[in-house]
Amino acid sequence: MASESEAQRALQYEQTLMYGRYTQDLGTFAKDEAARLRLQEGDAAVPRRPSELLEYTQGRCAPCRVCALQCQRFLISKVGEDWVFLILLGLVMALVSWAMDFAIATCLQAQKWMYGGLDTNVLLQYMAWVTYPTVLITFSAGFTQILAPQAVGSGIPEMKTILRGVVLKEYLTFKTFVAKVIGLTCALGSGMPLGKEGPFVHIASMCATLLSRFLSLFGGFYENEARNIEMLAAACAVGVGCCFAAPIGGVLFSIEVTSTFFAVRNYWRGFFAATFSAFIFRVLAVWNKDEETITALFKTRFRLDFPFDLQELPAFAVIGIASGFGGALFVYLNRKIVQFMRRQKTINRFLMKKRLLFPALVTLIISTLTFPPGFGQFMAGQLTQKDTLVTLFDNQTWAKQGINDEFEYLGILEAWLHPRSNVFVTLVVFILMKFWMSALATTIPVPCGAFMPVFVIGAAFGRLVGESMAAWFPDGIHTDSNIYRIVPGGYAVVGAAALSGAVTHTVSTAVIVFELTGQISHILPVMIAVILANAVAQSLQPSLYDSIIRIKKLPYLPELGWGHHEKYNVRVEDIMVRDIRYVTLNCKYRDLQQVLHSTKMKNLPLVESAESMILLGSIERTQVGALLSSQLSPQRRVMTLRQKALSEDGHRLSDPSIRFQISTETSSGTPARPALRKPLKPALKRVPSSPADSPPAGSADHAGIALKSLFCANAATEPTEAQGTAYQKAKRVRISIVEEMILGDKMTPTEILEWEEQQLDQLVDFSSAKIDPAPFQLVEHTSLHKTHTIFSLLGLDHAFVTSIGRLVGMVSLKELRKAIEGSLTGKGVKVRPPLASFRDSTASTTEADTTALRQLWDRHQHHHMPREAGPGGDDDDNTPKGQ
Amino acid sequence: MASESEAQRALQYEQTLMYGRYTQDLGTFAKDEAARLRLQEGDAAVPRRPSELLEYTQGRCAPCRVCALQCQRFLISKVGEDWVFLILLGLVMALVSWAMDFAIATCLQAQKWMYGGLDTNVLLQYMAWVTYPTVLITFSAGFTQILAPQAVGSGIPEMKTILRGVVLKEYLTFKTFVAKVIGLTCALGSGMPLGKEGPFVHIASMCATLLSRFLSLFGGFYENEARNIEMLAAACAVGVGCCFAAPIGGVLFSIEVTSTFFAVRNYWRGFFAATFSAFIFRVLAVWNKDEETITALFKTRFRLDFPFDLQELPAFAVIGIASGFGGALFVYLNRKIVQFMRRQKTINRFLMKKRLLFPALVTLIISTLTFPPGFGQFMAGQLTQKDTLVTLFDNQTWAKQGINDEFEYLGILEAWLHPRSNVFVTLVVFILMKFWMSALATTIPVPCGAFMPVFVIGAAFGRLVGESMAAWFPDGIHTDSNIYRIVPGGYAVVGAAALSGAVTHTVSTAVIVFELTGQISHILPVMIAVILANAVAQSLQPSLYDSIIRIKKLPYLPELGWGHHEKYNVRVEDIMVRDIRYVTLNCKYRDLQQVLHSTKMKNLPLVESAESMILLGSIERTQVGALLSSQLSPQRRVMTLRQKALSEDGHRLSDPSIRFQISTETSSGTPARPALRKPLKPALKRVPSSPADSPPAGSADHAGIALKSLFCANAATEPTEAQGTAYQKAKRVRISIVEEMILGDKMTPTEILEWEEQQLDQLVDFSSAKIDPAPFQLVEHTSLHKTHTIFSLLGLDHAFVTSIGRLVGMVSLKELRKAIEGSLTGKGVKVRPPLASFRDSTASTTEADTTALRQLWDRHQHHHMPREAGPGGDDDDNTPKGQ
Repeated sequence: MASESEAQRALQYEQTLMYGRYTQDLGTFAKDEAARLRLQEGDAAVPRRPSELLEYTQGRCAPCRVCALQCQRFLISKVGEDWVFLILLGLVMALVSWAMDFAIATCLQAQKWMYGGLDTNVLLQYMAWVTYPTVLITFSAGFTQILAPQAVGSGIPEMKTILRGVVLKEYLTFKTFVAKVIGLTCALGSGMPLGKEGPFVHIASMCATLLSRFLSLFGGFYENEARNIEMLAAACAVGVGCCFAAPIGGVLFSIEVTSTFFAVRNYWRGFFAATFSAFIFRVLAVWNKDEETITALFKTRFRLDFPFDLQELPAFAVIGIASGFGGALFVYLNRKIVQFMRRQKTINRFLMKKRLLFPALVTLIISTLTFPPGFGQFMAGQLTQKDTLVTLFDNQTWAKQGINDEFEYLGILEAWLHPRSNVFVTLVVFILMKFWMSALATTIPVPCGAFMPVFVIGAAFGRLVGESMAAWFPDGIHTDSNIYRIVPGGYAVVGAAALSGAVTHTVSTAVIVFELTGQISHILPVMIAVILANAVAQSLQPSLYDSIIRIKKLPYLPELGWGHHEKYNVRVEDIMVRDIRYVTLNCKYRDLQQVLHSTKMKNLPLVESAESMILLGSIERTQVGALLSSQLSPQRRVMTLRQKALSEDGHRLSDPSIRFQISTETSSGTPARPALRKPLKPALKRVPSSPADSPPAGSADHAGIALKSLFCANAATEPTEAQGTAYQKAKRVRISIVEEMILGDKMTPTEILEWEEQQLDQLVDFSSAKIDPAPFQLVEHTSLHKTHTIFSLLGLDHAFVTSIGRLVGMVSLKELRKAIEGSLTGKGVKVRPPLASFRDSTASTTEADTTALRQLWDRHQHHHMPREAGPGGDDDDNTPKGQ
Repeated sequence: MASESEAQRALQYEQTLMYGRYTQDLGTFAKDEAARLRLQEGDAAVPRRPSELLEYTQGRCAPCRVCALQCQRFLISKVGEDWVFLILLGLVMALVSWAMDFAIATCLQAQKWMYGGLDTNVLLQYMAWVTYPTVLITFSAGFTQILAPQAVGSGIPEMKTILRGVVLKEYLTFKTFVAKVIGLTCALGSGMPLGKEGPFVHIASMCATLLSRFLSLFGGFYENEARNIEMLAAACAVGVGCCFAAPIGGVLFSIEVTSTFFAVRNYWRGFFAATFSAFIFRVLAVWNKDEETITALFKTRFRLDFPFDLQELPAFAVIGIASGFGGALFVYLNRKIVQFMRRQKTINRFLMKKRLLFPALVTLIISTLTFPPGFGQFMAGQLTQKDTLVTLFDNQTWAKQGINDEFEYLGILEAWLHPRSNVFVTLVVFILMKFWMSALATTIPVPCGAFMPVFVIGAAFGRLVGESMAAWFPDGIHTDSNIYRIVPGGYAVVGAAALSGAVTHTVSTAVIVFELTGQISHILPVMIAVILANAVAQSLQPSLYDSIIRIKKLPYLPELGWGHHEKYNVRVEDIMVRDIRYVTLNCKYRDLQQVLHSTKMKNLPLVESAESMILLGSIERTQVGALLSSQLSPQRRVMTLRQKALSEDGHRLSDPSIRFQISTETSSGTPARPALRKPLKPALKRVPSSPADSPPAGSADHAGIALKSLFCANAATEPTEAQGTAYQKAKRVRISIVEEMILGDKMTPTEILEWEEQQLDQLVDFSSAKIDPAPFQLVEHTSLHKTHTIFSLLGLDHAFVTSIGRLVGMVSLKELRKAIEGSLTGKGVKVRPPLASFRDSTASTTEADTTALRQLWDRHQHHHMPREAGPGGDDDDNTPKGQ
């Protein structure tokens, strides 16, 4: 777990370190880490080598073996190369994708088989049809809930947040990977209208993280925060690429969906990995004899010579505009359903108790409605998602053309035929029913995406328009020598791209459909429809992913709208916070305390003096807290006491003081890093008896009375749930510290108070604190547009506003968000984050520091603040749960 | 020209202003400008309205007219919207592209017709075949040279530089537009192996600039530097898009080729404009009856059901790898030719005199070799580029398959058939000859690109491999029930994408070929080949565009290589310049003078004091110069003299002092802006007699003796060539200043020297100087990788290195380039920039200031520094030529 937390710290640093931070920053860390790894490797390999050589030179094929050894070493050194990593990632993801597809197909076939085998009794058939998906979805929801609740949902919104530099806890772990893969397989195997694209982006990202951690075991390369982000971006492309066998579309889609600024130098990574992945994915299909050779996933066979008439373009444009409205409606509906479920307290409380009831209920309703002998007959209910797409992209025209009704509904196409209604009715019912079903189904707490369901609805809508056009112009519009009939399948392709583009706010769905269908002849209609759909949808609603980001309250920065010129006129001075707290270079500890009291800012500016206000750097809130707590720490108190005692009486030096000496010695250099915990481990072993949940009641009075009020202000952060063994362990360590303190602490509370007052009047010694020497600065006249660009380019969280070195204000993501959205915040989503645990970007950049401070905080809270035990903790101050 | 220079200033600011700069920055400017525009509009419209209404209300259809008026106003307000601009841009570019294609086709047809008509006499035929292209190319070269030498070449390297934030002078003007369009049409009409893609990117960018300037006449929106860059990026996409009717490929190609970091929010702009443009471009073809409906430009008809066998993939991989080497060789060859031409002094001198000789000579050689009855018969010489591509993408197999030789060479395919050799020989000869021909032809100083020639060579190479495969496996590799023959046309598509991808270092050529051929069935082979080609080529040579950037010495930042881990270990402290000059807040003018003497840095750091070294901001060199010159200016001297005289004698106040009063009054607020020139215009009119090139010899001694040494250091910037009327005018103004000075200047040189020494000892008053209050800062531990990211993200030129507010060093583009390239600079290109005039990013951010200072500088140089008149000026200090 050590390497994991380091990797997370590295990721975490990315945001703040982008432009260089901390006198001892990650560069040093990486360097040291690399040196350490090499040293370890050296330890393991170099001493072995002479002995090996000695042994081998006595053998016959010694040169061969030496050569082999060198080859092996060379190969291991190559393991760190990017392309090896990308190939491995592509390979693994292709295998995962193929295996999942296979499992899903098996699940669906099982359902079909059950349903088919019971065709003697409709009731039994219904029971089988309904029970099967309900069981699967319930299992998926339960499994995910238990193993890793982070695996719920699409994953694209979270990946967007992570790629922005924010660390979401436990989002890229092996547990989540397992939960997502199994949960998704079950969810899709149930036949519900759910997609696999979003989850695949998440799975690929987890795969990349795990793989890079695995490869780092071989040495050769080390963790680097920038590299991690690059690899995650490539992984997102792989996710989409191997899901649809669409490398180009995958790369573009992942860029559009997850990035705000894209480094072109990373472009090839995505292409390379996604192509390799798509290639393997399709080769597996060939080897499995599913396909004769590598072709597209949903291959179409439209005619090449005259794909469409120029006069059909208005119809395509109509599809685009209608899809735009439809896409916006889908996003709106999806959000409203989530909000409704959360607001209805009675429903909510009931569902909270029986967490699996909601998924089961939704599945029951949907599968009842699609039951083929029932209402399902009007909406091609027995077709799976894949079959539906195959039929919708079909080359023939379904509607009757003129008198000669030459077309026969063969094979799976039969599903669309109903004896008592025509194909138009079936299509309309299908679209309407699937629309709300998909919007509802994607709110189920299982791993699932919304891309594919939307894609299918779009295809159906396109088909509907196409069939109408074919019925309207039975011999095509073109009235020249040749008769070119209208191809409704082409309309289905256009509709699919347009609706999915509208929901996700992407243009690259166009490329995805070309790669999915293997035909690019409809490029202009598709592009026109997708652009129109985007234009309409973007002006009405945020994208589905942004909507989820807002619902989940993930940190985000809204995009600037299409050509909003007024944004160029708003300037930083209009939106900045002027009244900010700061720390001066020559301040006292008392001032630090006051600053911590009066503000909740996570980064405090450090200025030369209150008069000059020259900005020297910024210091984190946690650092200030650490400074303060180390100044008022019982250890220091004990030390002064000892020193006084020592000067009075030289005889009392005994065992505890030696132990104490160790712990202060290590913690003097780096203020409150791991040092506080590590040297105390022996102490833990010696004092294991005290029960974890009842620390000595008197101890609280002994430590830091002046700190109390400070801790009261932060009482909201108290951990209320049991958080596994790590937490327990930390508590036990903490208690042992307390006990150790008591051993050497002979002061009365009044003396302590006096001592603390005295300490607070000392000048602050900043030498041990980490100060960001170059916080990002803006000037008052910077435009909002420019500020937005810089914030999204550098993934900033806040920036100080200066005027010739003087600090005049601050702008944070919040102000920027407010300024951009204006009225939007009014109707914005206000629900609680459904994520079990995530924390804000900079809240806990240095876990060790936080932990050290928290050890003191928690103790106080337990005794003085029991009333704050509710679940209403402030997100901003969320602490890392578990190590 | 005023608006042009403002627009350029705006663009110029972009680089330095990215993160906010100057107390009065562009935001203010834009705001003021918008207010002014609105005021003007208001002046013109609002007072008119009541009278109009008055008039109309008396008429019958008054409400209609009022409504129409409002509609008109509404429409005008919409003109500023982005989408209107993009539609117009797309429309214009489609028309330009189509018209040029039409003109080129006509030119080529004329040549064919001439050649065909003279088939009785081979000599006449040869004369016609050779003369026609020679005349066209010579005309193109001459026309471009005279009208706008900036139009020469591709344009993509320059656009890449411009999009990085650097201003290239006169690169986006109407003159260049005309030169490029006409020059390109002639060059392509000649039938030389030249392309139109690169120039189209340039043309579209110029079109966008001109269009935005045109639209700004209607008001509604105003120039904004960020918006300009966004629009230029979209324009690049349009350029490629309407050139190939490939909207998606166009967008991607333009991103890959011109950007290092791409804002995803600009993505839609490119897609929107490029789609619209491609659509109109193809619709024009339909309306012109060239096509029946909208289809791809080079439509292929490969079979859909079994596009290629899995076992053919190694052959595709071979194409990719070979193309990689070929692409690198092409770039190398191209650069070597340019370098050879420049190094050979005798050739060079001869060619310099007769500038048109080189193009004519090259054309002569190439057209002689392609003469169809001559050597051209072995290389399909009579085919135009377009016909060549059509034949290469042909569906049939050319090589004899087994015994039954059923294939007939029909139509233009005949060109590939030679009675005494087989198709393999023809293809090999074609590839070899075209390779060097294209590399040579693209060095001709006409507007031309290299994409299309390379594309054709790649297609031919692919075809060669394909034909070989077809000959090797006459019945296909697949040995199942069906016989699927090998499709050599598919290999040609793969080869074309791979070679053009290798030369340009892009992956998006894959998308371009799909859009060009209208088939996507070969997606995996194409992707694999393109990626392999890129991998090989990128490890051997820079891209063609980067190579040109280096040849032309445009400011650039090299890319970090593929996974160079050592880059993560280099840190800023290893590469930064430690010994930098700075300006302190409490320094004297003498210190300023010394700093200017000792460094050539364009931006000087301003620190609090030499002891604290706290960085307060940065000040431009020109600003420092302006401060110094205004302190030592004759005006101030005269003023002090007067004031002294005034206190002594109240009677001597006469006419010149009043005139003087005006000029100092206006120049007091803004230090040395236009103020210096404008109020002096009347003076110019009154003193027109002095000859322009012989200013009074004594005047130099009177002004700023202490400044002399300063100017000596900068003598290299002296303008040596006649620079048009603007320069003459400036000189005349300058002389009039001098003369005016003399009128009121009664000091002797010794007195002046004394006075100046006195002035230099005063403390500097920075209140009038523009200080960048937030220069970009790094810390010593920032890694090279991160520094590179930041420099390319923000388009930085330099950054200061600080340590808790203290200035410790500086990193500029130069250091960064050195650190990244390492040994590369050794073999780097050393030639002089062929561009007539371009200037560095920050050299002249404030033209007015520079001009004011230069007025003094030039005067001194003319008299004291005649020896510096050589052409070896330093690029860094290039001054704006012409106003």
